[in-house]
Formats: sequence, structure tokens, C-alpha cells
Amino acid sequence: MKTAALILAGGKGERFWPGSRSAHPKQFLSLTGDGISMIAHTVERILPLVAMEDIFISTNESYRSLVEEQLPGIKKENIICEPVARNTAPGIGLGAVHMRKAYKDAMMLVLPSDHQIGKPEEYIKCLSAAMETAEISEGLVTMGITPSFPETGYGYIRADVGEKCADAFKVERFVEKPDLETAKKYLEEGGYLWNSGQFIWKVSAILSAMEKAVPSVYSGLEKIESAIGTPDYENILLQEFEKMESVSVDNGVMEKEKKIFVLPGDFGWDDVGSWLALERLNKPDADGNIVQGNAELSGVSSSIIRADKKLIAVVGLEDVVVVDTEDATLICSKEKTGDIKKLLAALKAKGREGYL
Amino acid sequence: MKTAALILAGGKGERFWPGSRSAHPKQFLSLTGDGISMIAHTVERILPLVAMEDIFISTNESYRSLVEEQLPGIKKENIICEPVARNTAPGIGLGAVHMRKAYKDAMMLVLPSDHQIGKPEEYIKCLSAAMETAEISEGLVTMGITPSFPETGYGYIRADVGEKCADAFKVERFVEKPDLETAKKYLEEGGYLWNSGQFIWKVSAILSAMEKAVPSVYSGLEKIESAIGTPDYENILLQEFEKMESVSVDNGVMEKEKKIFVLPGDFGWDDVGSWLALERLNKPDADGNIVQGNAELSGVSSSIIRADKKLIAVVGLEDVVVVDTEDATLICSKEKTGDIKKLLAALKAKGREGYL
Repeated sequence: MKTAALILAGGKGERFWPGSRSAHPKQFLSLTGDGISMIAHTVERILPLVAMEDIFISTNESYRSLVEEQLPGIKKENIICEPVARNTAPGIGLGAVHMRKAYKDAMMLVLPSDHQIGKPEEYIKCLSAAMETAEISEGLVTMGITPSFPETGYGYIRADVGEKCADAFKVERFVEKPDLETAKKYLEEGGYLWNSGQFIWKVSAILSAMEKAVPSVYSGLEKIESAIGTPDYENILLQEFEKMESVSVDNGVMEKEKKIFVLPGDFGWDDVGSWLALERLNKPDADGNIVQGNAELSGVSSSIIRADKKLIAVVGLEDVVVVDTEDATLICSKEKTGDIKKLLAALKAKGREGYL
Repeated sequence: MKTAALILAGGKGERFWPGSRSAHPKQFLSLTGDGISMIAHTVERILPLVAMEDIFISTNESYRSLVEEQLPGIKKENIICEPVARNTAPGIGLGAVHMRKAYKDAMMLVLPSDHQIGKPEEYIKCLSAAMETAEISEGLVTMGITPSFPETGYGYIRADVGEKCADAFKVERFVEKPDLETAKKYLEEGGYLWNSGQFIWKVSAILSAMEKAVPSVYSGLEKIESAIGTPDYENILLQEFEKMESVSVDNGVMEKEKKIFVLPGDFGWDDVGSWLALERLNKPDADGNIVQGNAELSGVSSSIIRADKKLIAVVGLEDVVVVDTEDATLICSKEKTGDIKKLLAALKAKGREGYL
């Protein structure tokens, strides 16, 4: 059976402002100083399992040209643009019907475009194992990350360690982002994994699950599928997609399904959730600083400095994040990167959307 | 008797990097957000006492075009360029011989170009009083600032409060920058004033004092004076000036002279010694911030943000100084503005003089 991948690349990535913008979000940035964007790394990483011509990108019209520019190997007809945002269930369903049209059935990998994988070989092994589970079980498989600390920013998956299918465990339940106490408890108890938002299933399995769990979404998808390759495609896509319920694949589909499995993975996964991730993705210098671009530091420690062309000179500070771009410079306390959203809201309220 | 002014505008102002550059130092910046440079304010401030045509600017060739651009009212022949730096005694002496050539004698005001005066009317009164003392005494008069706190960054002048001439006191002695203990003692004891580097004397008085105190400098000045207005001026200026001893007017002349007076002044003087001065020169907002230019702040307090065209976005920080310019951005802890010099030294060592 053909293996195909759907890479999700429609996100906005506000937490990476001003590096990311509404017109140029995080997945199109290089955050490791190698000049290669996260989405390009994502594609490259899965080439041992998926042929370039079988990789699909789920995005929207605003990012089409970035995708074409950064991923010249992707077939034009594999760039799937959602006409409006309807969360992951309709988005993934749209990818799935494109694959059904192309291959009848296929092993489908659903992968975020803006995560970092520190151990790519280990990652390929885990994906292969997940594919095996999906093949044998005909169910829905997700990859869970063995937690290394009580993170409160992720959802968790409780594995039923008594019931296995190949290397994966049956999922007992999904749990929402916990508070710190609960997260600590999960870590102590064991059997909890971070939900990394990576899915492996057969196209037939996910579409059949959608037919049961979100029938109205599914019937819209069927109409879109029959229009693929016809001149009516764009019109029908817009008409049907707009009507769809906005629901995530986790809540809307997985939680209603019985045959769901989680494969525990330990492959250096990082969701690259904020500028602070640069400390994990890059090796800090002797003063604990991550310095990229044209910067000069004096008496600076534990800081993240991402300069561009202009000289960024930092003196006598610690725990700061500085990100310079063509038209905006962010200077932020490491503790307060979550407040970047407040700043963006203030800019929006002042009608300064040009900076967003 | 004619009143003439010599405005000293040859300084580099490293502490105002990156606003100031070796090619564009502090006196040519506007630091109050009104777009008017410090030197332009200096000229404007003394117009009640000195006609524009009697104002001389002491600078060097690198800054001549800035002077002409910012001070179009100054006569071209009144822009005096030192061919090499030789501290204030030769520099002021050069101005004095130009004045002697033009006026035979005159009341001469010697004023820095990069200080701020908060109460200009009070200032004019003090200058007038100092001129009166200089007229009556035929001596050298300086303006001293009544200290408001134990500043360790200035030299002090000890006044002999028992001996007056008009409103000024005889100077007992000049003292170098004290340590904090000593500065506190000065403040308690009274009779100590800050040395503001502003001098008032007759051209004949300062030149006669120089003839006695620094005779080799004086004889060079005489040679230069006779070349003023001739085609040999530039050559003789360079030849004589280069030979002169590098010495300040305080140490080299004033301290050796008997008839020296100090006029205590309280006219909102500020030497604008570093970016921190912006907090004194401008009214902070409700969060204690000084914000100039295109900036957006969230959770920021007690900070100085001087943006230019690019958006400067600051989040969750206090006590920082941010200065953006065309090709460099400084981000500095308020406590560490003194370390800007270290940074500049590092840039120089790396051959990056373009930024200096």
C-alpha cells in the first residue's frame, strides 16, 4: 500500500512574532540558524518513508506561494488550500479525500509542519511502528511523547498499558492541558504521554471514522471529492467547507472511536512553542546565550538574540529575548514571552495590522 | 564691549551610542523629542546676550558640515576647526585669538554644546552676573552648579564664601571627581559647587593668563593669529597646533591663576552624560517610561525607549534602555550604560569601526 503524508501548514504562530507574521508564520521560518525552514525540514525528515510526489500540504491561499517557494519538489496539485479555517477534522478530512481520489486507499501520515525532531532516525522507526499498528488494527494511531517534566501546555494521552497492538498501546483516554499539580501526578503515575498531534492511519480508516463521528462533515467531504479535478472544485470546496462544523480531530473523531492506539515515542520531539525553544534547538554559548545574526554582546547571559542585518548590541542583561526583523524588533523578558499576544492585540486595536 | 561666545563642539559622546557616532556625536542629536539638536538649543539660548554673528563654534573638520547644516546662521569664518585634538586650553586659546583678531578685545563666553539648561531665563541672569564679575575683576570666571546630590562623576569647585566680586565668589580650589564618601562630605560641608565647564572672561584676560601659565601654547597661538585671513592659515594652524601641549583649561590655566571666581548657578543644568539623562530631560509616562518614536510596550516600566522608523516592541521588562537607529540597535540595562564603552571597544577590536 502506498504511503502518503499530509503536512499541516495553515497555522499562524503568533508566539513567534516578529519572526512570524500573519503572512509568514512559524513553519516557514528557520529557527536553527541553518537557513532551512521548519516545513522544509519536516518534508526532508519523512523522505525515507514517503516519496516526494506523495506528500500533500494542507495550507491556505495566503501561504501557497511560500509553500511553492520553500518546497519546489511538492506537486502543485498536492498543495491543498482550505478556503476558510475549520480546525483539524475538516482539514484532515479534506486531505484524506484527495488521497482517496488519487490512491483509492493509502497509509496516511498526518504531521505538523512546525515541530522539531531531534533524533530523525528514531523518529522514522517510531513512524514505521505506528504504520504497522495502523495496518494490523485498521484503527487510528497517534504518536505520544514520553514526558520528561510536568508540562502544562500540552494535552496528555492515557495509555492502557495492558492492551497492545504491535508496539502501540490502546488509548484509554485523552486529557486536556492539566494544571501543574495534575501534570506532576501524571508524571508520577506513569502511562501518560504528551499528545504530539501526529497521526497515522489508513485513508479508509479515518474516513470511515469520520463518517460515523462527524457525518455532516463527511458528507461535505464526499461532495468535494467528486469535484476534485473538475472546474467546479473551487466553488464546491468553498460552499461545502464553509458549512462544516469547526472541530478538532482529537475531540471530534478520535475520542469517539474505539480502535485508537498510541505509540510512545522518544525522538527528541519539541513543539517549538515559543522563542524559548531556541535554547533547546541550538547549543548555547559559554554564557548560556543563543546568538544568531549580526549581534554584539557585553555582560549578557541566558539570553536569546536573533539578529538580522542590523547590528543588535546588548549590554548588561540576562534572560531576555531579542528578535530583529526588517520592520520590527522584539525585546522581551524570557518569563513574559506569553505576553507577546497582548502586544499584538494592542497593535491590532490601534489599527497597526501591518505589523501582524 | 562686544560679547562673543565660543561653543565647544568637538566631543565624541561615546556614551550616546548608537544615537551618537564618531561621525555624528551627541551635540548634534535631539534628545528632547523636539527635533532640535543640543547645539542648536545652545545657540538659541544665548541669543539674548550674544548676536548670532558673534558666535564662534570650535569643532573639527569632520563635523563642519553638520555645524553648517544645523546652524545656518553662524558665519562660515566663525567655524573654527582644530586640526588635531589638544584638549581645552589650546582649543579655547584658538577661539580667543580669533576673537582678538576680530574685535581686539571682547567679553568671551565659553560654553559646551551638549548640556541641557532647564531654566533659560535664570541662566541668562547668571551669565550676565558672571560677565559683570569678569568685567570688574579682569579675572577668569566659571559657573558652578549648586549640587543637589553627592555626584561622583563631576569635578567640584570650592568657593571661598568670604570673598566676593559682584555676585561671584573667589575660587579656593578645584577638586577632581571625588569618591562617594568625599562627595557626601562636600555636600554636608557646603561651599562646594559642580564644575560645569562654562567660562566667562575677557579675551584679553584669558590670553594674558595663558601667556603666563602655558607660554609655549601662547606663542603658538600668536603665530596662528597673525596668519588668520591669509592663505597660510591652514598650514600654520596645523604646524603650531600639533606642537602644543594637550592640557585642559582647568588644570593648565585656571588652577595657576589667582583672580578666579565662581558664580553659583541654579538654572536646571544637566550635563546629559548618558542615555539616563532622557529621564530628566523628558516627562516619564505613568509607568515611568520615556518613549520616543515608533514603539509599543506591554508590561514595561522605568525604561527609556528611543525608537526610530522600525517598530520597537518591548514586553515584560523594567529598567532597560533601548535605542534604535538606522543600522544598529542598543538594548542595555539602565545600571550598565557605562559598559557601552566596552561594547564599542569590542567592535573596534573586531574591525567593525563602521558602527562607531
